[in-house]
Amino acid sequence: MEFKEMVRKRRSVNFFDPDKAVEQAVLERIIEEASLAPSGFNLQPWNLLVVRSPEVKKRLRKIAWDQPKIEQAPVVLVLLADKDGWKPDHPVMEKSWQNQIDLGYTRPEMREWFDRAARQLFGSDKGSLTFAVRNSCFFGMALMLAAVDAGLHSHPISGFDHDALVAELDIPDNFVVPMLLAVGHFDQKQTLGPEKWRKSYREIVRQEL
Amino acid sequence: MEFKEMVRKRRSVNFFDPDKAVEQAVLERIIEEASLAPSGFNLQPWNLLVVRSPEVKKRLRKIAWDQPKIEQAPVVLVLLADKDGWKPDHPVMEKSWQNQIDLGYTRPEMREWFDRAARQLFGSDKGSLTFAVRNSCFFGMALMLAAVDAGLHSHPISGFDHDALVAELDIPDNFVVPMLLAVGHFDQKQTLGPEKWRKSYREIVRQEL
Repeated sequence: MEFKEMVRKRRSVNFFDPDKAVEQAVLERIIEEASLAPSGFNLQPWNLLVVRSPEVKKRLRKIAWDQPKIEQAPVVLVLLADKDGWKPDHPVMEKSWQNQIDLGYTRPEMREWFDRAARQLFGSDKGSLTFAVRNSCFFGMALMLAAVDAGLHSHPISGFDHDALVAELDIPDNFVVPMLLAVGHFDQKQTLGPEKWRKSYREIVRQEL
Repeated sequence: MEFKEMVRKRRSVNFFDPDKAVEQAVLERIIEEASLAPSGFNLQPWNLLVVRSPEVKKRLRKIAWDQPKIEQAPVVLVLLADKDGWKPDHPVMEKSWQNQIDLGYTRPEMREWFDRAARQLFGSDKGSLTFAVRNSCFFGMALMLAAVDAGLHSHPISGFDHDALVAELDIPDNFVVPMLLAVGHFDQKQTLGPEKWRKSYREIVRQEL
């Protein structure tokens, strides 16, 4: 699909057709397409839980202000952003570093510099949270667009009790959950509401320097 | 451009042609297309500084580890994520709320509930930072793709001294800067490096539930 069409077709829909499944092959494709998103030093701190179980969705719905779309959508993705993704010995960090050596983007003797730089940027509570959320939300946005391209719709959900979710699903401490993403087919028996207002260029840009 | 093509064509390029300008009309179009990204409660906490001045770019380059692309790129966007974007009396919050009343998405008597919910979700340091970075990075990713669709390239930059940048550009306290984005035309005299490794579905998904 053309980008200009997609970006308008992407709507956060509230009604999913519970009878129309999301095929596993389609899900895998959109997740791998989204993973072409950029990340600082290619560290890709995005991870997912893929929830299809009605029983788990019911538990999630309770934690997310009882939003019916969580049970209606055939798939709910729980985005996990890894605050430790920049640390030495992290498996993704090590794999990415080796890949960048293999491709000629860096050299082994740069490693000390890199580790120091990463600690300086991401070593604080605020730094690691920003690192994790920023890059995972690049992936998250790409995922919403890839879903549209596959004929699906989605709804990003930030209205949930973060601590309760982490406890309920036993999510390790290194992860923060920036959003849940309900994914499925729009329920054609419903009417899509009108488009909401968006800020114009003049409202977005504070200063031209 | 087709999404499948775009998502692969989007590369974080290191070399921009300093002689090929980014037209103002094109810049405005891609920023407004990107602004179709979703945000929690449609609060759109994304803002930009648009930097074209060689003198300002030189100052930014010093703060961002002396990366030459900052001076080479005809435009550098400074993404400002508004940590206060959910607060009552914030002009965007009030405009968005009124718009959602006008469109029938909410009712005036829901306002008390909304303000309480927003404070609960976003009222802590961690909550407001996550709110600001999450939504602004949805916009940021959409912006990188919109740039590709317009025949441009970009490079998201997180390697900079955040506090020095905020001081240098006199950025108010309510903003955090998740990234700089260099935007321009790829320098055709250079060769684009090979694609870096990306995590597969199996490496992204921790659990299927």
